[in-house]
Amino acid sequence: MMYPDPSVITRVCSIGAGPIGGGWAAHFLARGYDVTAYIHDPAERDALMSVIRTGWRSLTELGLAEGASLDRLTIVSDVKEAVQGAGFIQESAPERLEIKQALYKVLGDIVAPDVVIGSSTSGLTMTQIAADCATPERCVIGHPFNPPYLLPLVEIIGGKRTDRGAVEWAAAFYEHAGKAPLVMKKEVPGFVATRLQEALWREALHMVANGEATPEDIDIALRNGPAPRMAVQGQCMAFHVACGEGGMATNLDQFGPALKWPWTRLEAPELTQDLRDRMVQGCNDMAAGRDFQDMAAERDRKIVAVLKAVRDTA
Amino acid sequence: MMYPDPSVITRVCSIGAGPIGGGWAAHFLARGYDVTAYIHDPAERDALMSVIRTGWRSLTELGLAEGASLDRLTIVSDVKEAVQGAGFIQESAPERLEIKQALYKVLGDIVAPDVVIGSSTSGLTMTQIAADCATPERCVIGHPFNPPYLLPLVEIIGGKRTDRGAVEWAAAFYEHAGKAPLVMKKEVPGFVATRLQEALWREALHMVANGEATPEDIDIALRNGPAPRMAVQGQCMAFHVACGEGGMATNLDQFGPALKWPWTRLEAPELTQDLRDRMVQGCNDMAAGRDFQDMAAERDRKIVAVLKAVRDTA
Repeated sequence: MMYPDPSVITRVCSIGAGPIGGGWAAHFLARGYDVTAYIHDPAERDALMSVIRTGWRSLTELGLAEGASLDRLTIVSDVKEAVQGAGFIQESAPERLEIKQALYKVLGDIVAPDVVIGSSTSGLTMTQIAADCATPERCVIGHPFNPPYLLPLVEIIGGKRTDRGAVEWAAAFYEHAGKAPLVMKKEVPGFVATRLQEALWREALHMVANGEATPEDIDIALRNGPAPRMAVQGQCMAFHVACGEGGMATNLDQFGPALKWPWTRLEAPELTQDLRDRMVQGCNDMAAGRDFQDMAAERDRKIVAVLKAVRDTA
Repeated sequence: MMYPDPSVITRVCSIGAGPIGGGWAAHFLARGYDVTAYIHDPAERDALMSVIRTGWRSLTELGLAEGASLDRLTIVSDVKEAVQGAGFIQESAPERLEIKQALYKVLGDIVAPDVVIGSSTSGLTMTQIAADCATPERCVIGHPFNPPYLLPLVEIIGGKRTDRGAVEWAAAFYEHAGKAPLVMKKEVPGFVATRLQEALWREALHMVANGEATPEDIDIALRNGPAPRMAVQGQCMAFHVACGEGGMATNLDQFGPALKWPWTRLEAPELTQDLRDRMVQGCNDMAAGRDFQDMAAERDRKIVAVLKAVRDTA
């Protein structure tokens, strides 16, 4: 299938009246798209508008695209009308397989085959969702991070019958539309971001269950410790830069033994030569030849800015 | 032991010429203290000054206390001279037990007994460190988060022979000195922040080892997903506020079953009534009666500010 150039898309359809569907609608409006929002029941209109207006405040502060306007929103309760003229469809229907399967059966028949459909699902696979869809090739998961009008991440993966081309198109389109796409290497439950967060969360629950920390302790530790640095550098580059000239190689050689220590209840994988190489190579690729001192100075400037942002925003 | 009021302390001694010792010296200078820095070998002077100057740039940007000046730094290589007149001692000597034990044996004899000594150790216990110290009652761990001139967290815990009063004094002093103290409820390896980060890190290593993600994927996911929200709210309040009026109770009821799902390789603890109560109570305490919509609006304003800080800082 030949998909159109992502930059020619002017109208997006967002399906769903909840915080996710509304968040997506607000995001696409802010990026200057015409948006048709589909709500199952006209009575959901106020709830949807409330989410969109909430998102709009933040999106305005972040900077609207030229011509972006809430006036470019149309709300409908007819699916055929909803997908009319849309160059991309973001589906955020309720997280129940039978509802999604029935919806994709309909969408598969009425949406032109060169229009990619992205699902916000966090717990289902596209293989399941598109089981009854006649055109599964263009169906992908495009999983946002909550709140979707604010956090840029979209994790993308197809089902067994999805075209590679549709996955690549979705990544290009989301990027063009101001999101941070991440194409999954494999189908794993929880994608990347939720898995990382969930590991941290379960360790936190263990600590609270064992009287080692209170919920307040957990949040104090995160806000004043790892989180500001993680917002700036992630975790791989945080360790890479913290270890100076030696970077991730030094980190793994120096702290490798600590992976065996009971510093969390999660057992680390074996630090094989292959894993070491992947980590070192990945960090070197990201550093792209930059000097560690420059990267450390940039880290410091950005962490200062983040700390001030949190401190000085009422 | 009667310890002095934390607000009367004017001079701090920082032991250690590395990134931690230097980072602490810079922090205390920026908060307006006289600082005596002890370096083992006069040849370490340049390395120490380099760390302090690096820290000073960020600390200046964050805002110096009245009267704060690099001129108020004294560097010495004589321990007796170093502790002279200091109302608090922050020890960041090399992370080797025999070095720390020998040092605390000396400090125990020459430092007035109402002066609290805090150790930056990340892997040793104060029970071990103060084994040969004649005055272990005033010795605590005050574990910073790297870089210590930037990130406010200090995790505090005593050894078996430490006074409860010394732990409380350290928390009050660190807070007065512009840090975010967290008094540990129990002695656990990795304290709180490192345990949470380590759980996330080990899940990341598993994902890279299994070809589920690259290091770049990990960092993209964190920077554009959980980390900005975590920098603003931590993780308990992030879930509490995301679940609207029902808060953490709704989170645990709705996502409780997901704790059994393979969303990370770390197994969650059993979600007992006791754990549920602790989580709900802890979040309600933090919310302190604020309306969830107000908290969500504040979250959004702060996340916007954080995203702009990262985006707009070169």
